[in-house]
Amino acid sequence: MPGSRKHIPVEETVGLIMEGDRGALGRAITLIESSRPDHQETAHNILDSCLPSPTRSLRIGITGPPGTGKSTLIESLGLEILKNPDNRIAILAIDPSSERSGGSILGDKARMEKLASRKEVYIRPSPSSGYLGGTSPKTHEAILLCEAAGYNVIIVETVGVGQSEIGIASMVDYILLLVLPGSGDELQGIKRGIMEIADGIAVTKIDEAEQKSVHFARAACESSLKLLQKKYPGWEPRVMLTSAMAGNGIEELWRNIRFFTDTLKKSGDFEKNRQEQRIRLLRAETDRQLVQAFHNKETVRSLYPIVASAVEKGNISPFSGAKQLVDTVIRNPR
Amino acid sequence: MPGSRKHIPVEETVGLIMEGDRGALGRAITLIESSRPDHQETAHNILDSCLPSPTRSLRIGITGPPGTGKSTLIESLGLEILKNPDNRIAILAIDPSSERSGGSILGDKARMEKLASRKEVYIRPSPSSGYLGGTSPKTHEAILLCEAAGYNVIIVETVGVGQSEIGIASMVDYILLLVLPGSGDELQGIKRGIMEIADGIAVTKIDEAEQKSVHFARAACESSLKLLQKKYPGWEPRVMLTSAMAGNGIEELWRNIRFFTDTLKKSGDFEKNRQEQRIRLLRAETDRQLVQAFHNKETVRSLYPIVASAVEKGNISPFSGAKQLVDTVIRNPR
Repeated sequence: MPGSRKHIPVEETVGLIMEGDRGALGRAITLIESSRPDHQETAHNILDSCLPSPTRSLRIGITGPPGTGKSTLIESLGLEILKNPDNRIAILAIDPSSERSGGSILGDKARMEKLASRKEVYIRPSPSSGYLGGTSPKTHEAILLCEAAGYNVIIVETVGVGQSEIGIASMVDYILLLVLPGSGDELQGIKRGIMEIADGIAVTKIDEAEQKSVHFARAACESSLKLLQKKYPGWEPRVMLTSAMAGNGIEELWRNIRFFTDTLKKSGDFEKNRQEQRIRLLRAETDRQLVQAFHNKETVRSLYPIVASAVEKGNISPFSGAKQLVDTVIRNPR
Repeated sequence: MPGSRKHIPVEETVGLIMEGDRGALGRAITLIESSRPDHQETAHNILDSCLPSPTRSLRIGITGPPGTGKSTLIESLGLEILKNPDNRIAILAIDPSSERSGGSILGDKARMEKLASRKEVYIRPSPSSGYLGGTSPKTHEAILLCEAAGYNVIIVETVGVGQSEIGIASMVDYILLLVLPGSGDELQGIKRGIMEIADGIAVTKIDEAEQKSVHFARAACESSLKLLQKKYPGWEPRVMLTSAMAGNGIEELWRNIRFFTDTLKKSGDFEKNRQEQRIRLLRAETDRQLVQAFHNKETVRSLYPIVASAVEKGNISPFSGAKQLVDTVIRNPR
């Protein structure tokens, strides 16, 4: 089907991306999101050509339960970051598509109106389909493409409590956890998973709450942090009070992020963390490509329906069925 | 290493499990949790021998944000279920281990004291390691083993908001979502993911809250449910008011679950759902076995460190590295 394999010129696309062409960047991310092997191969060729670009980027992950005001905070923080005219921001909003409806929870650009209108800002939802964790190797690839396009601050927004944040830890430098005033007891349940990976915590919407509940949330976070092992020996995560609407605490938050970067670059932990992330990405990407290559194999494609039918009827167990399929391709001596 | 490969007699274990021997059941689940290929093979042999047992079981998934009182509700519901002396309950508490500390959030048996002391009840934390979704094929295997051991009601407890619940949908018949009184606005963010898969919703701890906030939560859930597509044509998920401590609403909840089962068995959706679940398990298990067999392969084991080192240094991209590894085992013609 030569008609369906539209030729995408790799070199030309790379050139356009590096010149900062948004259209080319968008098309490349779309290729990454595609499940077609030829699209993915083109996408990886583009990525490989972009990669040697020196990365002096800063990758920020912003996470928190629904309703904590992630978009509003990103809007304020982004405007603060843009006070330095050298900065260009890419925002990847991870879209935890509903499995059943395929619908999108996030409203994207509409939620960050001021940033969306700035030419130094690129906003794009990032696919998470098939990855329950909410982040996927594809998000990591999108980060790399944005960096190749000259965005030096990458903000990855993710929703949810307790699962997707673990995924985000494998692709950003600084993780900010948002909590609402009054939060406390429920942190008990989630603190290990998220608090452990947070490099900073922001109590949000402080102008909309009583001072008492703001201080309660701060105290709860601080005492939780004290119980945890430090992520980096030289860094003490802080609890900051913010109001994105009123603009309170945003300057301090950005200062904290820059101070974090300086500290970790001096200790070598910044680069060490990036190296570990590349290794994790290699592992995730290997498994992903393996599964794809396996299911594209002719022998597997013809055997699968037969095995699936036997499993569906309950004639053989899913485990034996799986073994039969895998054995056709990889048989290890025992 | 003959010493480390302790012989586990499959037939004897199957016999003991089917007689209801808790020790044998526990050992079999431990084999499933093991990452050693020989343990897994034994576990699957045990499972295959157990499988032909006719499944007249009922699998209930209980989920909700931290603090909604899942254990307390399971304790009350379990005691209600045991009023019928034919019932035997297995409770699998999915333990979303923290990636960094490896710690456990749940307190297991201590949280369900009365049930834990009953001989008709088996309580066991279920591993979720490596599966961000919080549920894994291993949980599904543990369910099958418990059923082979004669437990006809399986309760799977999972924590979190928005991600792990999707995983649970592939292994239980009835999904109960717990929400706290006063819940409303934050449901906006999570409703698509969880509400869509819920077969019933319980507002919990109603005795500890003002009536106003109980009714607010109920109204919010009901209006959310109205917006959603129905999961089964013949079933309308209900919002129930419960207080596990005071014992309110628990009898009604159990009646609702039984009515659900009757309704779906009549329409054929009960068995159809189970068939779909088996197919999903086949797919997940195939991919898991494939990845394991791949990384155990001699060629991959010797090439991996070389590729990893190049990726770590940034000499090649994780995507090219992954392709090199996969190509050694599966090469599809293009």
